[in-house]
Amino acid sequence: MEKKLRVMSERPMNAETPTEHLRSWITANTAFFSRNQGAIPEDPISLSEWRLVIEGLVETPHSFDFDQILRMPKAIVSNTLECSGNGRSLLKEKASGNPWTIGGVGNAVWGGVWLRDLLSRAVLKPNAGHVACEGFDIPLGSKGVRFIRSIPVEKAMESTLLAYEMNGEPLPVEHGYPLRALALGWTGANCVKWLSKITVLEKPYEGFFMDKVYRVFGKGEDPGSGRVVTGLPVKSIITRPLMNEILPVGQIAVSGAAYAGEVDIEKVEVSVDNGSTWTPAEFIGPFEPFAWRHWQYLWEAKEAGTYKILSRATDSEGRKQPMNAVWNVLGYGNNGVSEHGITVQVS
Amino acid sequence: MEKKLRVMSERPMNAETPTEHLRSWITANTAFFSRNQGAIPEDPISLSEWRLVIEGLVETPHSFDFDQILRMPKAIVSNTLECSGNGRSLLKEKASGNPWTIGGVGNAVWGGVWLRDLLSRAVLKPNAGHVACEGFDIPLGSKGVRFIRSIPVEKAMESTLLAYEMNGEPLPVEHGYPLRALALGWTGANCVKWLSKITVLEKPYEGFFMDKVYRVFGKGEDPGSGRVVTGLPVKSIITRPLMNEILPVGQIAVSGAAYAGEVDIEKVEVSVDNGSTWTPAEFIGPFEPFAWRHWQYLWEAKEAGTYKILSRATDSEGRKQPMNAVWNVLGYGNNGVSEHGITVQVS
Repeated sequence: MEKKLRVMSERPMNAETPTEHLRSWITANTAFFSRNQGAIPEDPISLSEWRLVIEGLVETPHSFDFDQILRMPKAIVSNTLECSGNGRSLLKEKASGNPWTIGGVGNAVWGGVWLRDLLSRAVLKPNAGHVACEGFDIPLGSKGVRFIRSIPVEKAMESTLLAYEMNGEPLPVEHGYPLRALALGWTGANCVKWLSKITVLEKPYEGFFMDKVYRVFGKGEDPGSGRVVTGLPVKSIITRPLMNEILPVGQIAVSGAAYAGEVDIEKVEVSVDNGSTWTPAEFIGPFEPFAWRHWQYLWEAKEAGTYKILSRATDSEGRKQPMNAVWNVLGYGNNGVSEHGITVQVS
Repeated sequence: MEKKLRVMSERPMNAETPTEHLRSWITANTAFFSRNQGAIPEDPISLSEWRLVIEGLVETPHSFDFDQILRMPKAIVSNTLECSGNGRSLLKEKASGNPWTIGGVGNAVWGGVWLRDLLSRAVLKPNAGHVACEGFDIPLGSKGVRFIRSIPVEKAMESTLLAYEMNGEPLPVEHGYPLRALALGWTGANCVKWLSKITVLEKPYEGFFMDKVYRVFGKGEDPGSGRVVTGLPVKSIITRPLMNEILPVGQIAVSGAAYAGEVDIEKVEVSVDNGSTWTPAEFIGPFEPFAWRHWQYLWEAKEAGTYKILSRATDSEGRKQPMNAVWNVLGYGNNGVSEHGITVQVS
């Protein structure tokens, strides 16, 4: 897997997708970014022994075996997944964490079951408010804290998939085999891999990965006071040409992707003069809920020179990608417009 | 590649996708059916030496190198590809050819360039009527006839992609690396792989693979008098449960795919009583032009017994999948409803 990725750390495995592999609407499984807090389970999980436990505020706790999951109604959805910290290294002021550029994002078509179908079988108690997911991954670090994350019960019931299939293949080990949660349109931190247990709670789960990280807070502020990272902000990225590419005078196809999590992308504009003027790009490829839209702008580059090309997206709720994202200590959600310098020369 | 496929012949390679791998909206590249008349080019084609020649009835014959293709405006499209002879072995009366069951079909998201963009650069002459495609594959058989196929210029200009990318990966060797034609919504025979030359003609290309095969004709009729196989007929297939599967009494999710080539699928109906009564299925997953739609019907199987389950599709032009397709000598286009026997038993 790692061959196609830019590895930032080996243990835990954190690796981003090189820009060339972001040019397709489908991100190949072997090129899909990988972000982990713990270690990937070392022995492949045996399907016959695997169980998914549902407990907590439910009338009937359940233990599902894999065959039961496979026999349930199937859901198929496209979903663009982005790491909460994607784009962190592009912030003008440094923030703590893995130095993602633009490659902590990818799109796949997933097959699985709706989490609501499982929760409905267990029957939520009236005071059910949050749903915590836990996986088989192995905690790293001296404190041995498990990666457990909760999402509100509304999100769990409305648009959270438990996926066993990714781009037509069984979910790969590094992406959570045999089953992972996908809170559609929300960042990867909300999408627990190697799922083992679901606990229904009244309030959000309390633990390191809920209270200390994946929250947006400023310098000197208490992490716990910050907003929890959930849905993706509106954002566009340029994947062609590459940063610093040298191109001949003539038509240059500028293209990229745009996404806004739970919200549709409505417009992408491109500037080839560092933001003085903007022109709408055309959309290309599939248009599906929760999935990125690819776009393209055919630029007639008539004169040699250096150019700064920019793109900015607007979503169907009117949110506009900002020139600069609001800085926060852990550098989450950087959706600022990034400058893409290229050189055009007479061929 | 072949590991996941049911191989019908090795030389040429003809292999179909097992039913389990047809359950995803994306068919994985490694599980995608393979149908060839010639041998796959043995040495990988060198991208630096590769050229695509465009000649014939054009004002300016062209020779494109691969970099030129990559620099052109990109198109991304989903397209369900089906072999002209898919379903042949399910015809009640035997027809000549590879014994495809339902697995000569698959869906991918393809990246490439529009053929019209290349033809526009070469400028079609007023009498241009057909576009012949030729590949680097090696003819098999004593006559050494090359696999050359032509399509009408209207199809070439409107909706024919030259694809270099398949499901986010460079086009695999067995699927036509580095470039293949995709006449969207038309059968695989119209989608030449390992593309080397495009010749613009006034009339359809004349040759074995145009005149003797890929035509629909009856017993004793002249092959050349038959209709050329082009767009896919309206069809649905059941992929779950498997044929002859034994299932416990209770809810059974019956699911499958439906496709109609250039036309959208409008409705899929399911019968669990061998055609006496029909109920509409629900659609699941992406809905994109030229791509199949997946569907599902949740059946409450209350009584043990043997059942014949059927599915039938209707497209947005009102074409209905027939109970039995019109038989023809070479068994093309079998879109008849197929019987799917299963057993339900008390668990």
